[in-house]
Amino acid sequence: MKAKKYRFNGKKICHLRELPTNASQDDVNEQDIIARTARNIKKMSKLQEKLYADGREGLIIVFQAIDAAGKDSTIEHVCKGLNPQGVIVHSFKAPTSEDLAHDYLWRVNKCLPRRGEIAILNRSHYEDVITVKIHEMQKNYKMAERTIGKDTQVFFEERYKQICHYESYLYQNSYRIVKIFLNISKDEQKKRFLNRIDRQDKNWKFSSSDLKERALFDTYVDQFEEVINATAKRHALWYALPADDKWYTRYLVTEIILDELNKCHPDYPDLPDEEKARLEEARLKLMNE
Amino acid sequence: MKAKKYRFNGKKICHLRELPTNASQDDVNEQDIIARTARNIKKMSKLQEKLYADGREGLIIVFQAIDAAGKDSTIEHVCKGLNPQGVIVHSFKAPTSEDLAHDYLWRVNKCLPRRGEIAILNRSHYEDVITVKIHEMQKNYKMAERTIGKDTQVFFEERYKQICHYESYLYQNSYRIVKIFLNISKDEQKKRFLNRIDRQDKNWKFSSSDLKERALFDTYVDQFEEVINATAKRHALWYALPADDKWYTRYLVTEIILDELNKCHPDYPDLPDEEKARLEEARLKLMNE
Repeated sequence: MKAKKYRFNGKKICHLRELPTNASQDDVNEQDIIARTARNIKKMSKLQEKLYADGREGLIIVFQAIDAAGKDSTIEHVCKGLNPQGVIVHSFKAPTSEDLAHDYLWRVNKCLPRRGEIAILNRSHYEDVITVKIHEMQKNYKMAERTIGKDTQVFFEERYKQICHYESYLYQNSYRIVKIFLNISKDEQKKRFLNRIDRQDKNWKFSSSDLKERALFDTYVDQFEEVINATAKRHALWYALPADDKWYTRYLVTEIILDELNKCHPDYPDLPDEEKARLEEARLKLMNE
Repeated sequence: MKAKKYRFNGKKICHLRELPTNASQDDVNEQDIIARTARNIKKMSKLQEKLYADGREGLIIVFQAIDAAGKDSTIEHVCKGLNPQGVIVHSFKAPTSEDLAHDYLWRVNKCLPRRGEIAILNRSHYEDVITVKIHEMQKNYKMAERTIGKDTQVFFEERYKQICHYESYLYQNSYRIVKIFLNISKDEQKKRFLNRIDRQDKNWKFSSSDLKERALFDTYVDQFEEVINATAKRHALWYALPADDKWYTRYLVTEIILDELNKCHPDYPDLPDEEKARLEEARLKLMNE
């Protein structure tokens, strides 16, 4: 499993700048990887059907990244082969006033899948410890002074613990959660932004505020690193995947989802003997109609 | 504050059978208490308006009890004086199939109030560590073997921790939660059940399964005691209130709610100077119309 190299479970420290952001170090061939990705998607599809029939575990896949790292296109490409009945993609935008009137996990809880289903979160509660921290947005939240009056670092370290407890709770309640960070280089971001400016059909993806955030590129990398190290756990893994080569990112994502699906050991429910007898009875009735 | 005697914050151990279930030990006069209850309800109403205007803290009040202890009538009596815009009562019945397809806090999360609001939970996530444990319902849940295959005591001790983390998370996110157990005696339960059987307008409140649960009265008391001791915290208090005398229970509940509302320090928002200037401008415009 190529993705293993990019996996963090809380034991080894993640240094994002030391990780490759493209495929060049992994001795892979693009055409071969594309073919393997297609095969993986077929396998995922079969396992997803079993997960749905089985209904004992739910899967939550979180995507986080710096702008233009390819979250949307990766999710689109990888999930197209899955049965939409049983897979739900939730895209988190800036919180609404209704979201802000509640605790920050409230809008995530609304998106939790039923057991047997897969929820894909395009951004998530991690925004509340990334963007919110970088812009110190919590200071302007309508919350009691005892909460937001704290030192910023203390406030967010409390949130990291809250998130660890939350994800551990989900695991103990028959969910699996895995978190994927798309690790793009600053150069590649520049290329993709220029492409969005050049191509009229991509213009809608660009906003002038994107350059303001780009100026904070290094701050974002630091903050993602801090968050990954604070919240990577054996049962709530983080992956920091090279994101400059989309064909390779997609492949790694299929590997990760397959791995998580396999861990669920999904299988078609084995009917008890009396139910099997009833099936036989039904067969007879239908045959004699 | 009379209710203080019945308060548990995790420091002193709760022995339910040693606590009074009626008013006789508290040197109180029924007429006086009824008048004080009415005054408390008025104070609650004023504070609730401030809480709503202030919008910085949300209040969650959990009611749990053995059957016929008076949850419904206490909630009705105490909350009638409050503005329904800003107070929501949620009654938890047996979980639906949709509830059971999710984690057990899912249906509670759906009921969390906005900050500035009060949510009253008539039963709650505590059912998942009381009734579910007593009847070992978790064994039949459609969940992974790694979760429900555990020893029952281990499984529920894990849940107590999950609940403590959850309630601590809520506190850290500008909510206050307080939990009230209505402590009824077995004799009083018998009287109330007989009353429900005798009075045709109360028949709907009685079900033959109530007697099956009554046979487990002592098991319920033991289990409530275990749960209270495992989940009482400074910022997630439990109260075990005498419930045989409804007039007294109601009074104690108003004391508790007032205490929690006061802890929120709600106040009408103090407008910044420029907003005040705008109000004056608006006044002038209206006067000169």
